[in-house]
Amino acid sequence: MTRIIFLLFLISCLPVARTACQGGAPEPPRSETSSVSGRWVVSADYYGTLINFSMELEQQGEKLTGNFDGDKLEGTLRDNAIHFLAKDEHGGTDDGTATLHGGVLSGMVTFTDGDDPSHPTTHKFTADRVPPRHSGPAQRHEFTPSTFYRQFSAAYKPVLTVSPGDTIHTSTVDAGGRDEKGVNRVLGGNPETGPFYIETAAPGDTLAVHFTRVRLNRDWAMSDDAIVGRGLDSDLAAKMKDTGKQVRWHLDVQRGVATPEQPAEHLGRYSAPLRPMLGCVGVAPGVQQAPPGTGDSGRWGGNMDFNEIVEGATVYLPVNVPGALLYLGDGHALQADGELNGNALETSMDVEFTVDVMAKKRIPGPRVESATHIMAMGLGGSLDDAFRAATANMAQWLTDRYKLSPSETAQVLGTSAEYKVSEVADRNAGIVLKINKERLQPLAPTK
Amino acid sequence: MTRIIFLLFLISCLPVARTACQGGAPEPPRSETSSVSGRWVVSADYYGTLINFSMELEQQGEKLTGNFDGDKLEGTLRDNAIHFLAKDEHGGTDDGTATLHGGVLSGMVTFTDGDDPSHPTTHKFTADRVPPRHSGPAQRHEFTPSTFYRQFSAAYKPVLTVSPGDTIHTSTVDAGGRDEKGVNRVLGGNPETGPFYIETAAPGDTLAVHFTRVRLNRDWAMSDDAIVGRGLDSDLAAKMKDTGKQVRWHLDVQRGVATPEQPAEHLGRYSAPLRPMLGCVGVAPGVQQAPPGTGDSGRWGGNMDFNEIVEGATVYLPVNVPGALLYLGDGHALQADGELNGNALETSMDVEFTVDVMAKKRIPGPRVESATHIMAMGLGGSLDDAFRAATANMAQWLTDRYKLSPSETAQVLGTSAEYKVSEVADRNAGIVLKINKERLQPLAPTK
Amino acid sequence: MTRIIFLLFLISCLPVARTACQGGAPEPPRSETSSVSGRWVVSADYYGTLINFSMELEQQGEKLTGNFDGDKLEGTLRDNAIHFLAKDEHGGTDDGTATLHGGVLSGMVTFTDGDDPSHPTTHKFTADRVPPRHSGPAQRHEFTPSTFYRQFSAAYKPVLTVSPGDTIHTSTVDAGGRDEKGVNRVLGGNPETGPFYIETAAPGDTLAVHFTRVRLNRDWAMSDDAIVGRGLDSDLAAKMKDTGKQVRWHLDVQRGVATPEQPAEHLGRYSAPLRPMLGCVGVAPGVQQAPPGTGDSGRWGGNMDFNEIVEGATVYLPVNVPGALLYLGDGHALQADGELNGNALETSMDVEFTVDVMAKKRIPGPRVESATHIMAMGLGGSLDDAFRAATANMAQWLTDRYKLSPSETAQVLGTSAEYKVSEVADRNAGIVLKINKERLQPLAPTK
Amino acid sequence: MTRIIFLLFLISCLPVARTACQGGAPEPPRSETSSVSGRWVVSADYYGTLINFSMELEQQGEKLTGNFDGDKLEGTLRDNAIHFLAKDEHGGTDDGTATLHGGVLSGMVTFTDGDDPSHPTTHKFTADRVPPRHSGPAQRHEFTPSTFYRQFSAAYKPVLTVSPGDTIHTSTVDAGGRDEKGVNRVLGGNPETGPFYIETAAPGDTLAVHFTRVRLNRDWAMSDDAIVGRGLDSDLAAKMKDTGKQVRWHLDVQRGVATPEQPAEHLGRYSAPLRPMLGCVGVAPGVQQAPPGTGDSGRWGGNMDFNEIVEGATVYLPVNVPGALLYLGDGHALQADGELNGNALETSMDVEFTVDVMAKKRIPGPRVESATHIMAMGLGGSLDDAFRAATANMAQWLTDRYKLSPSETAQVLGTSAEYKVSEVADRNAGIVLKINKERLQPLAPTK
Repeated sequence: MTRIIFLLFLISCLPVARTACQGGAPEPPRSETSSVSGRWVVSADYYGTLINFSMELEQQGEKLTGNFDGDKLEGTLRDNAIHFLAKDEHGGTDDGTATLHGGVLSGMVTFTDGDDPSHPTTHKFTADRVPPRHSGPAQRHEFTPSTFYRQFSAAYKPVLTVSPGDTIHTSTVDAGGRDEKGVNRVLGGNPETGPFYIETAAPGDTLAVHFTRVRLNRDWAMSDDAIVGRGLDSDLAAKMKDTGKQVRWHLDVQRGVATPEQPAEHLGRYSAPLRPMLGCVGVAPGVQQAPPGTGDSGRWGGNMDFNEIVEGATVYLPVNVPGALLYLGDGHALQADGELNGNALETSMDVEFTVDVMAKKRIPGPRVESATHIMAMGLGGSLDDAFRAATANMAQWLTDRYKLSPSETAQVLGTSAEYKVSEVADRNAGIVLKINKERLQPLAPTK
Repeated sequence: MTRIIFLLFLISCLPVARTACQGGAPEPPRSETSSVSGRWVVSADYYGTLINFSMELEQQGEKLTGNFDGDKLEGTLRDNAIHFLAKDEHGGTDDGTATLHGGVLSGMVTFTDGDDPSHPTTHKFTADRVPPRHSGPAQRHEFTPSTFYRQFSAAYKPVLTVSPGDTIHTSTVDAGGRDEKGVNRVLGGNPETGPFYIETAAPGDTLAVHFTRVRLNRDWAMSDDAIVGRGLDSDLAAKMKDTGKQVRWHLDVQRGVATPEQPAEHLGRYSAPLRPMLGCVGVAPGVQQAPPGTGDSGRWGGNMDFNEIVEGATVYLPVNVPGALLYLGDGHALQADGELNGNALETSMDVEFTVDVMAKKRIPGPRVESATHIMAMGLGGSLDDAFRAATANMAQWLTDRYKLSPSETAQVLGTSAEYKVSEVADRNAGIVLKINKERLQPLAPTK
Repeated sequence: MTRIIFLLFLISCLPVARTACQGGAPEPPRSETSSVSGRWVVSADYYGTLINFSMELEQQGEKLTGNFDGDKLEGTLRDNAIHFLAKDEHGGTDDGTATLHGGVLSGMVTFTDGDDPSHPTTHKFTADRVPPRHSGPAQRHEFTPSTFYRQFSAAYKPVLTVSPGDTIHTSTVDAGGRDEKGVNRVLGGNPETGPFYIETAAPGDTLAVHFTRVRLNRDWAMSDDAIVGRGLDSDLAAKMKDTGKQVRWHLDVQRGVATPEQPAEHLGRYSAPLRPMLGCVGVAPGVQQAPPGTGDSGRWGGNMDFNEIVEGATVYLPVNVPGALLYLGDGHALQADGELNGNALETSMDVEFTVDVMAKKRIPGPRVESATHIMAMGLGGSLDDAFRAATANMAQWLTDRYKLSPSETAQVLGTSAEYKVSEVADRNAGIVLKINKERLQPLAPTK
Repeated sequence: MTRIIFLLFLISCLPVARTACQGGAPEPPRSETSSVSGRWVVSADYYGTLINFSMELEQQGEKLTGNFDGDKLEGTLRDNAIHFLAKDEHGGTDDGTATLHGGVLSGMVTFTDGDDPSHPTTHKFTADRVPPRHSGPAQRHEFTPSTFYRQFSAAYKPVLTVSPGDTIHTSTVDAGGRDEKGVNRVLGGNPETGPFYIETAAPGDTLAVHFTRVRLNRDWAMSDDAIVGRGLDSDLAAKMKDTGKQVRWHLDVQRGVATPEQPAEHLGRYSAPLRPMLGCVGVAPGVQQAPPGTGDSGRWGGNMDFNEIVEGATVYLPVNVPGALLYLGDGHALQADGELNGNALETSMDVEFTVDVMAKKRIPGPRVESATHIMAMGLGGSLDDAFRAATANMAQWLTDRYKLSPSETAQVLGTSAEYKVSEVADRNAGIVLKINKERLQPLAPTK
């Protein structure tokens, strides 16, 4: 069995699975605090496991309208008691009652699947407001990590809570767990700095992480001399069979290059330009998913090992849990496409970034934006699957942002797509579809 | 970065990564209890994370010989203090000192990588004996599960501890979390019965699970009418776009068939033979790996969805943590090859099995044995990768068991291999290479 | 550019590309010979290249109805001059005029693409009648080959012309070109016996080849001890690097087994059961395609290397040119799944088969039928692509034959599909989806 | 059976299969014309099929040394009769006798496979000298094509014979067969200009084609609005199901952009920069291979659809037959990575190029060089296979040119590889590994 039973038995009876990814409209102004108008994060108890849904309510006197995880909702508020009924397009319903105490809703919700109406399930739930976006000036936070995590988990306590617009300055240890002084701080395997809790971020939103600083903070990196299996045909595999040694590189920030500390015979004059990047930028996946290890990647980002996640880039990730829970790590002094050695030039990093939340904007997977390009990442068990995922991710972007039809999308991709291989070293392979922003400017509506 | 840095920074400095999978010799007889002779499981503290290694000691007076995770070891025992030094073939060393108290060794070990001798690391460790195999008669345990887990984790407390040779009779809930009475016991997604702790099982061993009973315990199953993405080309994807509904099947044990409860127009007379199986049989992966969700699979087994894991079959899995920690779940009343709908006929199950431990026998991935065939499973992100993994797994089996050379292995595979697709519905695809046991009989040495 | 431009510039303006694969209705009775009623094969001159289309005409006095390659046609016949106009569903037209002389139509046809109506193209054409099916008794032909071809080509002159229902007894040389006496008759690479011209077979039909005899005619076969690249991961590739030698096998028809003539150390008692099969059964692809070499495969069959093409099996292939032009070769004394060594046990063969033509029945790719199973083959550049193709081929079969809806098709496949790997040794990988015929019996309408 | 039997039965007994790809040393000076010293192309008769081998002879009096297709050769010349014996490293031999008449050698050669010495085969052969490189000034040829071919075949008569260093100015029709005036000249499917015979090019050499001019010669191109199957996951396939129409583009050379002639709603202001390129550059494969259609690609080049084969680029292809037989076609006004629509902007082209021959330099597949990068192409049935092939092709380049060890190769690739997807629209997918030439400069030996 697979994730699909999950849909069938659990989520297919819920609206979340049917909410199309769509750009969000600006949030409506909320009325006075005694109102229930606004966005809520619902936590429903599924036989011992808590699952999140989003809910939006708009109160007019006793009347409620809005949506429950995308399904159109109607209801009433009398005294502190609310009742709501939401319907999806397949005849399914979400039928809830709750009372408001101390700003928290507590009650019961019954889900009925339109395909299987004779087996409704009923669950306790609580709901918390998505707080209003902070109105004060953005802040800059200095954060020195002391603990490093090895899973992208929703279960770890946030190390810092910040507001959209805020900036965090921090550092990361290298993939092996060594810090800027070379001290081993944690078992290797891409230990992460974080998680950072971003206020107002709720499931269904998109988190934007704009990197204002991705710089080296020590003068050496570790790599190796292997080629990963995805790069080896039978002949090359036989030739490479005795490789796999560590290689230590010197990082010369003045000259802007890396050189092997003890170069092999033909590499005495070889160097490669430094281009510091982060191999890992991820958020916690949904609570119903086992927390992935920090060597893995998915629609929630993670160990993407994409060499354009550099200073100046913005990474977009879908928010799956309240606060998003952002993790960073696995700095590379430089990495060629694919991370062909399994390791890039692994090093600790000095990092600064600004976070923002795009409310109610859903995206199907990681995206990156640079000064010149938009980039849609595809991740999958093969390069072929990753290629399909990247194409679908970008097609969705063009549809959402420019309202292109399928035919128009194909014409733009056929004349403007740039595909590069981002990652071959991990369980998921990665391919990135890039489009030069100059091509897109004429697609925006002229008013 | 990837798992490989993990090897480099962590494990490559350890002998474990260089221990080839090999058949084990019979365990030598151990001397009196005051001796340290025997097998130990070492737990070393890696900057806050505990990692397991195996150690074998043979004491002769004050002299110790043996191996540390496969590296040849020499040492001394004086009073209660031991010192050992183990060496791998690349010049790496494992240098330890410890004292024995209450049957537990406690001390420090220093690992030096032969490729990078100037950066040794030192760790606290404790070591526990692998207990001797129980000498009494095998027991049969009746176990009624009350908690069901959604990760194949080394962190959950065992629900039952048994000895090699023992038999357990228990039950599993269906993939959606419903039990034999249709009661929802837990959130769906292949919740598991277990974990069972198998005495004497230690990293480096193989666990054998022989199923003596895999039977239905209710008369209905849930499935659906979709085809998973791996089965769809562009045309078929467009045709299938409106499918995805649940389908409830009646399980008629008397007639031995399943039929749709409310059959569609052309399926009024359609039925398929029942063949109850378990979609999930798994052990806990190593502690350094994030515990996988119960929809995933790997060398530790898990959600393999292979329709020959039926009553009468034996499943072999590599042991990664002390006690192995065995999990079972995801029963299917029947499943065609590949689990093409994403769900098979998902149902609860009545299960009985006998466990055994093959000491010091390492295998590269899951294997299954029936009355007629040996079967090596390959799992990977694509069918092509799964095919390669299945072939390598079986080649290893032939090499280990029959000492076949590469040329001989190729000749046997080229004339006897049967390949079937086991699984296309999950993140890992699966292919199984089967060989009829009649072909193998002449390969065994004639004495 | 690709085959698709071909569609765009050439075929997309023609109805052939839009003719869905569909089961054929029984051919209507044709009127007297002076009529033009019946099926015709049109050969149109495309700037020097002849391309075939099918045409069906039904004459009622001066009025013509029918279809031009599937597009509904209306027209007139006056004296010996015909005019027709056919229309497809996209607004495209086929507008023709011709005169009838000596049973052959000669004229001009203008194709207009509905998507691009301003660029019609006009071509000379001739059309020949598809001859009526022979009414006499079926014949048995004895054919001793003297020439062997190394391409599945429409350009080679047929070696024998037979009628539907006829039986041919012949022989094939081995993949290396050696005959039953070991004489080298032709350069290796699967040289073929044929082509055989089957009367009445026309593009749009299906050819059925039923093998009544596939037997050995010598007592040795050649194979090797390599494993092809698709079976090798990095580790196994390194281990196998020194293999690749020829292995000669003795074929013992009495005992029904093959044994290596000079067995390696551990194979002294090893044997594998003989199961003679044909690696190649193919027809000529369409004339617009470059004739494939005899190591290749495609929807036209060819070097499929499927070990169930044995005595008793029926192979179905789509007809692409008049007469189908059937080729046979590449006998294997036995072959495990996948032809993992690159060579199976290659030998010459004694072959007898009966041919039949299923008029106006289109199939998307090769299919095989045994006493117990129907089997749909998928061929593609990866096992993943082959898996998708096999699934689509079988889904089409279920739709055509049993009128199953997409949902019904998914339910039957999800409970009855058996997938095996047929071929990994050639450019196309192959996967075969089998269904036990017992499952299908209840799907047939009960009258 | 597969191409491998071909190796076994035919070529494995020949030295050609064991000749490693290697950089060639400078050709030794040849003695007077009455000598047999020099390079020869041998044509051996394999049961009716001619196969080419290379032979180098160095005459010293009556003594001959040299090699036969890479195997070390010794022999004698007496009067006009030569005898030679060449040996490979596996104990195989090539034993020949011939007489010289009119500059042509005629005789018999016996091949004995070291693995199977009891089955030698004997063949008639003739051998022609590889002519000496032309010593005069390079010429510029004006060539107006009148015939266009649809296969990369060794069988078509060359349309022009030129010398290394010569330049040819010509034109190509578009993929659909239309020329610069829009006249349909030939059936579509990438009809080619050529073949051009390059003097001195012999099997074992590399052909270099340097494009000095790749320009538009009309103001429109045809494309479409589909996305090929390799770009579609299930969801996107369903969305794209109604696309597939032709789209005609206007090519504005002044502004340097292409725009749809009748743009859809959101594309009214959309344009893409012109970057004229050739989709097809190929040579004839070896005579033992069926001539591929012009939609296919392989180690001999062909329909590579790589958008960096533009004016200024140099394409390197392995020579497989005397004269190489160069074909060109399938011009694209521009093409994004992958040719995602199946068609790029297909148009006729004005082309000029200079050819050169790198004697005795073997390469494993197509390579391209620009002003800034060297590029190694990988072609395969999946992107994963193409990735492996590109990596192996570049690894070979680094080994041949810079003598890098496997470890050094991995370090350079891991820090300098750039991977892009070149092609997803055809049977072979393509991935190109690029390295900036600045990285390579320090690898060259300093003298």
